[in-house]
Amino acid sequence: MKNFIFQNPTKLVFGKGQISKLNELIPADVNLMITYGGGSVTRNGVYEQVKAALKGRKFIEFWGIEPNPQVETLRRAIELGKSENINFLLSVGGGSVLDGTKLIAAGILSDDDAWDIVLKGNAEKQIPFASVMTVPATGSEMNSGAVITRAETNEKFSFGGTYPQFSILDPEVTYTLSEHQIACGLADAYTHVLEQYLTTPNQSRLMDRWAEGILLSVMEIAPKIKENPCDYDLMADYMLAATLALNDFIRMGVTQDWVTHMIGHEITALHGTTHGHSLAIIMPATMRVLREQKHDKLLQYGERIFNITEGSEDERVEKAIEMTEKFYRSLGLTTRLSEENIGNKTIETIAKRFNDRGVAYGENRNVTGDVAREILLSCS
Amino acid sequence: MKNFIFQNPTKLVFGKGQISKLNELIPADVNLMITYGGGSVTRNGVYEQVKAALKGRKFIEFWGIEPNPQVETLRRAIELGKSENINFLLSVGGGSVLDGTKLIAAGILSDDDAWDIVLKGNAEKQIPFASVMTVPATGSEMNSGAVITRAETNEKFSFGGTYPQFSILDPEVTYTLSEHQIACGLADAYTHVLEQYLTTPNQSRLMDRWAEGILLSVMEIAPKIKENPCDYDLMADYMLAATLALNDFIRMGVTQDWVTHMIGHEITALHGTTHGHSLAIIMPATMRVLREQKHDKLLQYGERIFNITEGSEDERVEKAIEMTEKFYRSLGLTTRLSEENIGNKTIETIAKRFNDRGVAYGENRNVTGDVAREILLSCS
Repeated sequence: MKNFIFQNPTKLVFGKGQISKLNELIPADVNLMITYGGGSVTRNGVYEQVKAALKGRKFIEFWGIEPNPQVETLRRAIELGKSENINFLLSVGGGSVLDGTKLIAAGILSDDDAWDIVLKGNAEKQIPFASVMTVPATGSEMNSGAVITRAETNEKFSFGGTYPQFSILDPEVTYTLSEHQIACGLADAYTHVLEQYLTTPNQSRLMDRWAEGILLSVMEIAPKIKENPCDYDLMADYMLAATLALNDFIRMGVTQDWVTHMIGHEITALHGTTHGHSLAIIMPATMRVLREQKHDKLLQYGERIFNITEGSEDERVEKAIEMTEKFYRSLGLTTRLSEENIGNKTIETIAKRFNDRGVAYGENRNVTGDVAREILLSCS
Repeated sequence: MKNFIFQNPTKLVFGKGQISKLNELIPADVNLMITYGGGSVTRNGVYEQVKAALKGRKFIEFWGIEPNPQVETLRRAIELGKSENINFLLSVGGGSVLDGTKLIAAGILSDDDAWDIVLKGNAEKQIPFASVMTVPATGSEMNSGAVITRAETNEKFSFGGTYPQFSILDPEVTYTLSEHQIACGLADAYTHVLEQYLTTPNQSRLMDRWAEGILLSVMEIAPKIKENPCDYDLMADYMLAATLALNDFIRMGVTQDWVTHMIGHEITALHGTTHGHSLAIIMPATMRVLREQKHDKLLQYGERIFNITEGSEDERVEKAIEMTEKFYRSLGLTTRLSEENIGNKTIETIAKRFNDRGVAYGENRNVTGDVAREILLSCS
């Protein structure tokens, strides 16, 4: 096991009716700005619940943070926040609204342009922020990261900073999500775990078991949710799984990969593909191309998640990859670039971007633009 | 899933050589008191490492917090802390030293007698404290609880408060633990999980999987540690398992039991039995007596931990209980009161204590003194 430091101070406020606690959770004396997406919260009752909880309090609102939040939009929010002396942010929406809010929280305390904060990779300072999370997927509600898009150049990068002060997760707010949103959310959570699990074996038995525990839970609930998208306990497990998949809990003392995310972000930046969907396309291909270096872990994964115990090692690895692609498809997602009309031009653009950056990604820092091309061709 | 609020702010500093970070972890301007047990840290090198890390800093020391820390000892530490204006405590030792330190942290800020703080169940205020943990077992390094003994009456009670600011866990410091200490530590961690797992089924698939993940890890490492007690990765997983078994991570949205602990504490208070050992004796008996209300979870436990899939439900439950007792024995612990020369007098004392308190314990608040007697007779 590698040395590590773990600390996650976010307060998770989970369950039915918890939005009503907003007033006691947000300090009384702050200048509050609430951030939203395009307006879905006005249709699912969340906006009304937030307004009711904060009745009598003063706050300003910023609307219009889009899916894959754009720095161009966030610059306007930062400007507003600065001019209004905002010192506390509440994100009400999904992972994109919260990721955008994390950049606003940094931008308000910085003289740098917002995109420069992203490119630095780490926010030096952020004003306190919190969230009412409405779309289980990114884990942003309990982690320190955010992914931001620059529309003018079709680029998408992540940066890290501090954690939300608190996040309210009420499974009932997920009842109005579309099938596609749920499919992408489940794919996102599942893939987050694989990025932290399909690495060097035998680093920690316990972290392996916890990663597998999330994978098994997501596999188990996915088909049930299709039948019963308003079953409270199912949606509660979905919501909790998405949070625990990316809040540092399963990466204590182990290496990580994130190749699939690096490529997936490019697909989204260039084509607008929903994040979780892009991962469903890329992950099986990453497994295929990196099957040698991931061989032992793929065997363990196949056995513990899909009960694959028969056949040669190569056959079992092959089967584990097949079952993974099949699982993503079972969610209702496509898993090939051609199905999304993404062709060679995009593949070459991504390969060139990686090569131009002169960095290689992945656990072993060996995924160059050329390897990324192989991965993309493998799912083309 | 039940509504819940989760927040655990402790910073975990894990791995080889991490004790050297003490100076940067403890704020520069505090009046520091370091607390210790009976002196084992002077024999395993930890004391020297702590002194080296804090070279040039001023601090006072309090020695002699005993296993199952006694309020009589802690009162003296509180008095010293008050007179020296101590405002930061560092516990260097095992769970008992840290539990005692938690009471000192509360006592320094209180005019109440220390035992009254324990009896209240919750410390209102505590000065900041941290730990260098040397014995993986109690999970005290990342939770808010503590268990204190009153020697003059042979009573043992727990109270809750705040979390350690940080805890340093270096697996190398475990190499000098005795076989019995390790056996009790593993039994303690395993039983902590069972207390949070063997309850009403289907509350959270994910929490079940994480609980099972710790159980499977402990089962897997236990025999290997017997062979290789100085294997770093084994001891790292043991240390991490003990922490994660009782730091709130596996109890999100689920009910808990703690009957075995309530009875085990009495055994320890009356006979000095090591805490983990007392649990190894009581847990199988709790399963036997409460097998009806725990029936469904015992079936799941048997299948997922011991691969018990054959036979009638009753036979599978029976087998799961047998395998649990066998596991505790495989650690080198006895599992019957008679083996520790504990007889009917103790059983009756405990039954009377429970009945006199007029409270019933357990998930369903149905374990009265009479049920406790049944449990104790079942392992007599």
